[in-house]
Amino acid sequence: MTISTRLTRLLGCTHPVISAPMAFAAGGRLAAAVSGAGGLGLIGGGYGEADWVRREFDAAGNAAVGCGFITWNLERAVLEAALDRAPRAIMLSFGDPAPWSQAIHDAGAILIAQVQTLEHAKSAVDAGAGIIVAQGAEAGGHGRRRATMTLVPEVADMLAQRAPDVVPVAAGGIADGRGLAAALMLGAEGVLVGSRLWASEEALVHPDMHAAAVAADGDATIRTSVMDVARRLDWPEGYTARVLRNAYTDRWHDDLEGLRQVAERESARYAKAWAEGDIDVANTFVGEVAGLIRSIEPAAAIVEGIVAEAEARLARDWSGDD
Amino acid sequence: MTISTRLTRLLGCTHPVISAPMAFAAGGRLAAAVSGAGGLGLIGGGYGEADWVRREFDAAGNAAVGCGFITWNLERAVLEAALDRAPRAIMLSFGDPAPWSQAIHDAGAILIAQVQTLEHAKSAVDAGAGIIVAQGAEAGGHGRRRATMTLVPEVADMLAQRAPDVVPVAAGGIADGRGLAAALMLGAEGVLVGSRLWASEEALVHPDMHAAAVAADGDATIRTSVMDVARRLDWPEGYTARVLRNAYTDRWHDDLEGLRQVAERESARYAKAWAEGDIDVANTFVGEVAGLIRSIEPAAAIVEGIVAEAEARLARDWSGDD
Repeated sequence: MTISTRLTRLLGCTHPVISAPMAFAAGGRLAAAVSGAGGLGLIGGGYGEADWVRREFDAAGNAAVGCGFITWNLERAVLEAALDRAPRAIMLSFGDPAPWSQAIHDAGAILIAQVQTLEHAKSAVDAGAGIIVAQGAEAGGHGRRRATMTLVPEVADMLAQRAPDVVPVAAGGIADGRGLAAALMLGAEGVLVGSRLWASEEALVHPDMHAAAVAADGDATIRTSVMDVARRLDWPEGYTARVLRNAYTDRWHDDLEGLRQVAERESARYAKAWAEGDIDVANTFVGEVAGLIRSIEPAAAIVEGIVAEAEARLARDWSGDD
Repeated sequence: MTISTRLTRLLGCTHPVISAPMAFAAGGRLAAAVSGAGGLGLIGGGYGEADWVRREFDAAGNAAVGCGFITWNLERAVLEAALDRAPRAIMLSFGDPAPWSQAIHDAGAILIAQVQTLEHAKSAVDAGAGIIVAQGAEAGGHGRRRATMTLVPEVADMLAQRAPDVVPVAAGGIADGRGLAAALMLGAEGVLVGSRLWASEEALVHPDMHAAAVAADGDATIRTSVMDVARRLDWPEGYTARVLRNAYTDRWHDDLEGLRQVAERESARYAKAWAEGDIDVANTFVGEVAGLIRSIEPAAAIVEGIVAEAEARLARDWSGDD
């Protein structure tokens, strides 16, 4: 069996798997590997300059990939650097996509809007998104509070009523074929996979952070704003990021105001720790699926493994014995 | 197709659906209705005195039901009131079940341990639980921070390694057949349903709270300790409860210390509001599935609807068109 859904038909790809455009980690090599394996790979342009975006599109070669951005942080020149490369899709997260929608459509790209609440999903419909990714708070990196398990069916119901051509996709907590199969049962037409592909050979991640994620179980993460304050990133109210807890989050999670007062000093310290892969200071950006990640593998093997496991589970006969 | 799993075979019931033993709301009538529909109904003995437990077992009549307790709040006399009625199972949540395990086994009941972290799941194995319910934070009422989507497969993997006879069950965010089917895909052998059965005709819930849940979407809830401080309930560190946000949680959520200082006055006010169904003060205990609850129905119809929808989704052929 090959899983065929509205997502695979819209994107013209083989598997209903999109790789998350993880800032820093998702370069062109990762995106190309995911598209090459039959999914859709997205370059993570979130904090990138236009030159970074061009370089990573170059690294993707001729693969049909897309690019994702942090909406509140997006600049027109950076978006144009991506649109110049005729991307398959542009994903916008963390803010209202409406101001960018026309330019994306004019370039012939599909607008993927990632949302964290039902309210934002409605705004994404109004903005003309073709795909809406409902992202639960179990995800690694930035997000809000709702869970995948309830947000996906609620968004699917809303789309069925208001915009039946818009395709719902699930994100957050999906790292294997069980997660993909569950997402399809919840009403999604596919999944966006972050942490599991962050834990791939192609991801731009320090080896010590990879090792920390493999060693961690799912209890070991926290949603916090410590890293954003330490990096002096001006994330809007309501967004936090899930990372592995460490000495640094233990120190500052309950004293963000104190951290703000020493942010100039700490931002230099944090940047140095990040570059060196010092996991006691800089945070490992991985979701609750850390407990399901047991090795760093090539991205293609990860995508193929997720799909094969999902196909097997979906084919199971539940009427009899195991 | 009838869904048959290790849970239905262990419990000897028709459907892999257990009703959550929701304190106050899950009386004997609700438990009996769920067991009568082919699941397993649990009476919610969490804050109950022994007399309350006996009364609700009386209300369940001859139905094969069980009873659940809040472990840190449990007293021997209350447990014995339940064990005297030869319950099918006893569920313990929110604390180490080990001290109570022997008495439960001696009475011939299955020990169901509800856990919110991988670490607690391991303790529950050591305590001799026959069923482990992995509860995600999207659930209504008390819980912790992990999500159903990741906790269920991680607990299932741990059980497969350490205790393959112990049966994993999913809770949190499950209100319809999509949720049941998704839980099975994640590795659970069944589901524990709270909020959706709280929103049943048999539940002991004020009509104004039912109406508030039907009107709410899934964005409208919050995890907080406001109600516990207002009720002067001494919940251990790390547990919060999900409820509908209201003026009362808006006032106190960020000022729990201030609330503690006026808790004597506020506890009387909160108790009065609870009794009167004043939803601007007393909180409506419902999970993120509030957005999937559109009517108050008989419990049997809810169980049958969940199972029928899950069977249809599990039977779908994913290789072709919709």
